Amino acid sequence: MKQEKELAMAVHAEVTVPRTLYWVGGVDGHLVLIDQTRLPVDFVEMECRTVETVWEAIKMLRVRGAPAIGVSAAYGVCIGLQTVAGQAEGPFFARLDEVVKYLAESRPTAVNLFWALDRMQRVGHQLKGRKSPAEVAELLLAEAHAIEQEDREMCHAIGRFGAELLTDGQGVLTHCNAGGLATADYGTALACFFAAHEAGKKLKVFADETRPLLQGARLTAWELKQRGLDVTLICDSMAAQVMREGRIQAVIVGADRIAANGDAANKIGTYGVAILAAFHNIPFYVAAPSSTFDFGTKTGADIPIEQRDPREITHGFGRQTAPDGIGVYNPAFDVTPAKLIAGFITERGVIRAPYVETLARQLRSATAKSA
Amino acid sequence: MKQEKELAMAVHAEVTVPRTLYWVGGVDGHLVLIDQTRLPVDFVEMECRTVETVWEAIKMLRVRGAPAIGVSAAYGVCIGLQTVAGQAEGPFFARLDEVVKYLAESRPTAVNLFWALDRMQRVGHQLKGRKSPAEVAELLLAEAHAIEQEDREMCHAIGRFGAELLTDGQGVLTHCNAGGLATADYGTALACFFAAHEAGKKLKVFADETRPLLQGARLTAWELKQRGLDVTLICDSMAAQVMREGRIQAVIVGADRIAANGDAANKIGTYGVAILAAFHNIPFYVAAPSSTFDFGTKTGADIPIEQRDPREITHGFGRQTAPDGIGVYNPAFDVTPAKLIAGFITERGVIRAPYVETLARQLRSATAKSA
Repeated sequence: MKQEKELAMAVHAEVTVPRTLYWVGGVDGHLVLIDQTRLPVDFVEMECRTVETVWEAIKMLRVRGAPAIGVSAAYGVCIGLQTVAGQAEGPFFARLDEVVKYLAESRPTAVNLFWALDRMQRVGHQLKGRKSPAEVAELLLAEAHAIEQEDREMCHAIGRFGAELLTDGQGVLTHCNAGGLATADYGTALACFFAAHEAGKKLKVFADETRPLLQGARLTAWELKQRGLDVTLICDSMAAQVMREGRIQAVIVGADRIAANGDAANKIGTYGVAILAAFHNIPFYVAAPSSTFDFGTKTGADIPIEQRDPREITHGFGRQTAPDGIGVYNPAFDVTPAKLIAGFITERGVIRAPYVETLARQLRSATAKSA
Repeated sequence: MKQEKELAMAVHAEVTVPRTLYWVGGVDGHLVLIDQTRLPVDFVEMECRTVETVWEAIKMLRVRGAPAIGVSAAYGVCIGLQTVAGQAEGPFFARLDEVVKYLAESRPTAVNLFWALDRMQRVGHQLKGRKSPAEVAELLLAEAHAIEQEDREMCHAIGRFGAELLTDGQGVLTHCNAGGLATADYGTALACFFAAHEAGKKLKVFADETRPLLQGARLTAWELKQRGLDVTLICDSMAAQVMREGRIQAVIVGADRIAANGDAANKIGTYGVAILAAFHNIPFYVAAPSSTFDFGTKTGADIPIEQRDPREITHGFGRQTAPDGIGVYNPAFDVTPAKLIAGFITERGVIRAPYVETLARQLRSATAKSA
């Protein structure tokens, strides 16, 4: 009965939202990206017509978020091959390898970047000798489209499972940006809010601004507003007070890497939010594709914590806000222990502890079906 | 044995530190203030030679922190009377009342401001008819000096008691600025660190930057560095991670108002830090003069939470960092429940629960002594 009502309310769900990235035209086409460094003040789409432009966009964080970087790089390969599409097999495949190597150097730590480039290179070489360079270029564009489409489907599946955890009228909190801007479309943590909203559930979303780089203020607040959700920006230090006032019924965040025991690495500040949620008896969920589980990493203790430039804190937004000559500690992320996580929202469903057993079972079942 | 070693290490304690405020000259003198809006980039002392300048300095937060505002206002009264010191009793006392009323309007919610102005006005009128206006002006300057001196002594007493809780080599965390810049000198929470440092205990102090107004980054980090302490600036969202890494052995913060049951109102973010400290089994102390206890307020639930301008969050760094048209929630402070507070460091000693009984007993004992 309640579900029927929610479905009936879904009519208003059609909203035109700027796309993080998209391909224009055929094999001679180009990539369009939102320049995220200009958000939230300026909405600027940039056209990438050379592989160098794609490289620069990834390097300078104009496009960011592991899945979005992967998709951009795949299209970057297509752009790189445009200059050799009419040439012989030798120069064509030499160029493919060259472009892959070049793009891989744009953000040396982005796992999805390597994954997408490897896939494009492998598919290309598998066609060598069987298809003409022009045909391979067409098929590689189709592969890039497939990578993009798979990412969209993964995000929407996460959104559907996440939305089921939320009910009309709830207040929810997120940290950093695990949104459409970090993926080809729709996001991971934010996908849950988007899908709930599209199902007619009115949410009140609180977004942590997420110091030092303010992805919550600049990107998450922007995305939520673009899709018509009710968004309230707070400083990271206000989350506890907002919880105490009874305004939050669920927390959903993204993840960069999840250890086999369920410890989850994510943007700095996530761990603190998880403790605050536990103190206020609020469920804390992590939304991420199942590929984020790294079974080679046993626990969060094995995940190294990257340190970033002190000037992100002391000179964050064009103004010096701290004295010269002091110490600064700027860890890029933290690890939330599994015991603080109510469940993982993945494209395969919501996974609860014990994570290794649950996920292994799901993967076996998926393999059995596809066999 | 350990104490002896600490005393022996106290030799290096003499450091020249800029004073928050000071009076220059006699009854015709003037007030000098650090313009705190220019910190930490520029160190600028401003001379206040008219009551209007004092008013503007308080209004524009060039001087801030309840005790520092009170002392400044007391000197402001002295400056206001300089134009009528040679006149008859009528115009002199009319001017006194006028100046008091004028200065009281600079920051309408600052309790210490009213307290200091009331005291100056009362002392002045008590002398009416017994002393000449010139003599009253001299005695009111002495009263302002007394207010300043009492504040200094209170801070140093808090520091002495707080330092006893800390040991050499510890890591400590504070939030916002409860330092010398908020008082005539030396501060409350920071006084504990200063006194420990002067006793030869090497501390590693972590300062939360304290969004949205960055008092931790701008003022606390500056003060700690000025006095030669080892200070490390972090974003508010990093406190949990720093605790998890075992870097913090005690948290000390200030307070704006403490209810009779020990619930303490302080800068937004304090409550969250208290929860994080409890989760990591780190003692969380509040350092404040005993006058901060408000026995008319039974619990923290009776303390209203002031909301501030959204632009402090969205345009805080001299640049717009959030989209237009979103909701913003900007509570100025929060209330930490007594159960999360290990003790209150006051000028009378460290008070532990039950607060009402302990403090009432101390006040009775103090009254008995002075009678």
